[in-house]
Amino acid sequence: MRLPHLGEGDVIRHLSELFSVHGSEGCLIGIGDDCAVIPSVSSPGRGEMAWLVTADALVEGVHFLKDQISADDLGYKTVAVSVSDVIAMGGEPKYAFLSLALPKDCLAAEAIDGTWVGGVLQGIREACEKWGILLLGGDTVGSKRDVFLNLTLIGSATISEIKYRHTAQPGDIICVSGFLGDSGGGLRVLSQRIAGIGADNSDVEYLLSAHFHPEPKLEQGRWLAAEKDVHAMMDLSDGLDSDLKKLLASSQKGACIETTQLPLSVPLTRISLEKGWDPLELALIGGEDYCLLLTVSANAFDSLQQAFQSRFEHPLFAIGHITDQTGELMYQRRGAAIQAAYTSFDHFQNQRSLSTTPP
Amino acid sequence: MRLPHLGEGDVIRHLSELFSVHGSEGCLIGIGDDCAVIPSVSSPGRGEMAWLVTADALVEGVHFLKDQISADDLGYKTVAVSVSDVIAMGGEPKYAFLSLALPKDCLAAEAIDGTWVGGVLQGIREACEKWGILLLGGDTVGSKRDVFLNLTLIGSATISEIKYRHTAQPGDIICVSGFLGDSGGGLRVLSQRIAGIGADNSDVEYLLSAHFHPEPKLEQGRWLAAEKDVHAMMDLSDGLDSDLKKLLASSQKGACIETTQLPLSVPLTRISLEKGWDPLELALIGGEDYCLLLTVSANAFDSLQQAFQSRFEHPLFAIGHITDQTGELMYQRRGAAIQAAYTSFDHFQNQRSLSTTPP
Repeated sequence: MRLPHLGEGDVIRHLSELFSVHGSEGCLIGIGDDCAVIPSVSSPGRGEMAWLVTADALVEGVHFLKDQISADDLGYKTVAVSVSDVIAMGGEPKYAFLSLALPKDCLAAEAIDGTWVGGVLQGIREACEKWGILLLGGDTVGSKRDVFLNLTLIGSATISEIKYRHTAQPGDIICVSGFLGDSGGGLRVLSQRIAGIGADNSDVEYLLSAHFHPEPKLEQGRWLAAEKDVHAMMDLSDGLDSDLKKLLASSQKGACIETTQLPLSVPLTRISLEKGWDPLELALIGGEDYCLLLTVSANAFDSLQQAFQSRFEHPLFAIGHITDQTGELMYQRRGAAIQAAYTSFDHFQNQRSLSTTPP
Repeated sequence: MRLPHLGEGDVIRHLSELFSVHGSEGCLIGIGDDCAVIPSVSSPGRGEMAWLVTADALVEGVHFLKDQISADDLGYKTVAVSVSDVIAMGGEPKYAFLSLALPKDCLAAEAIDGTWVGGVLQGIREACEKWGILLLGGDTVGSKRDVFLNLTLIGSATISEIKYRHTAQPGDIICVSGFLGDSGGGLRVLSQRIAGIGADNSDVEYLLSAHFHPEPKLEQGRWLAAEKDVHAMMDLSDGLDSDLKKLLASSQKGACIETTQLPLSVPLTRISLEKGWDPLELALIGGEDYCLLLTVSANAFDSLQQAFQSRFEHPLFAIGHITDQTGELMYQRRGAAIQAAYTSFDHFQNQRSLSTTPP
């Protein structure tokens, strides 16, 4: 007999109900967006400020395998994934708190520099320096078997510029700020250990780097946050399909996505052709893209797009539009509806499964 | 061959070096006290404010066993241990962020209320309501085998009233705000499964409750924080011996403790006599007392003590004094030096070991 099994969504829904924040708390925002928002004070020349807070946990055997990711890449990525959340709401990362649960064997050495955990801390420092973050505390404890990392990141933002998930408007153009599916492609490279493609293949290296060393773009987030015509924004971490559904649920809207417009990198396209992968599947559910998903007022889109292109020297990719059909996410291929019912990632049901066959 | 093995202290030292905070950051305080301090702004009538931030991780098999602690006690305790850190620096707990890594079997149910994790969340809610904390976010992920919990707690404090570990002065009276060793006694009850003492024994119930349901005292912390004659303060979590050594190292001072003055509860004294336990050992290294350790200007002590007694209807216990002999912690029995070299808890070397025989 198969027991009924709750999913990640059930736990988060229960948490949201148990710990709902009421209107009495000003513009405080709790569970349900990339970060919580805690109003702070007015800062000279910048208006009312708020703290943005996000936490990300990484668990050995679920989020990483010690023999697949280098210790410093893991440390770097632990910071980068939280930075991505702060950027997606229009903030600047500031202060980090690291909790580290380590089994004994991680500490069997004469000096910490030679240990696995020494490498993790080095990667964390690299990321903190890159984004100007101060690591101010945390907790260091033992663990029986698996390594557990948690990073809580505090960022700051001007309240009037904070972008949310719940503010998409019908007719908005849906955009993403980078290529989709590269990280998922890197993970597939790892899980398939592709025969015949060595580490000296630059396409493979590109995909692995996208997977191990994501580069959330602080300047792009700050720039987009300052634009009033950007209505809603979030980061892409679980994959476009899953993340867009969250944005739609939060905004109580629907969306139509033109799949031929999904931006795919040349290396991903090339390896997909060669190996018979479905790049659309990777773009929709590969996950860990750590670029931005946003909705922009339709009549402002062209000028915003041009300004973005000239400022950052790469395009903002328009991939569809918001509809008023609450909860309906429609995929099209050159205007004709298609089925794209991939299984999205659920932390409790399965590890990220990329071998799922689309219907 | 026994490999050399790093301890918790080595990791924390390395973290402090890698992530040291420089003077340029105002009164920002990083690694090394109960909480980090992030200066905020001036608040009408309360002076300059700061945020206090602390994180605590609890790992299955290290900090708790599912068959020993009830789910709601575990949830409650996860919050209480962080509240204790905020109180110890003179702050008020405000916002919590919970990361939860759960193996599949925790979710095998039809409704979350019936699951183990449902109980944990209930206990967390109880604690949040007790201390007026809003849980605003976190992360919910899967885990291969063990449960991990991390709570990051943000509190607020008036900067001028924040109490630190590094500010003890020679001659200060060392005090604790509650009985020592009760929680350690509760843990010993559990680990020895004392034959012949049933759950209906109120002494055993008292010790177990001290272990499972610690009660850090917010009002006492706020009151003591407002007193200028309280020079240094921290919470007792690892045990007096270990925690006082941290305060001494941070203040670059020494201490002399009169062991006959260590406050022991009647239930602990009674069970210790009956079972041949050494209550001094439990008071010094039992750990998880979650009351306050503080140092008070000697000439202000009597009046402070009286005011505390009349305000809270229980004493502040004077247990020794601060010396200028940096790093020297001396134990006395009625004025004569004694050896009390118990092994303190190290997360990486051993689980909390209470069966260590004193020399």
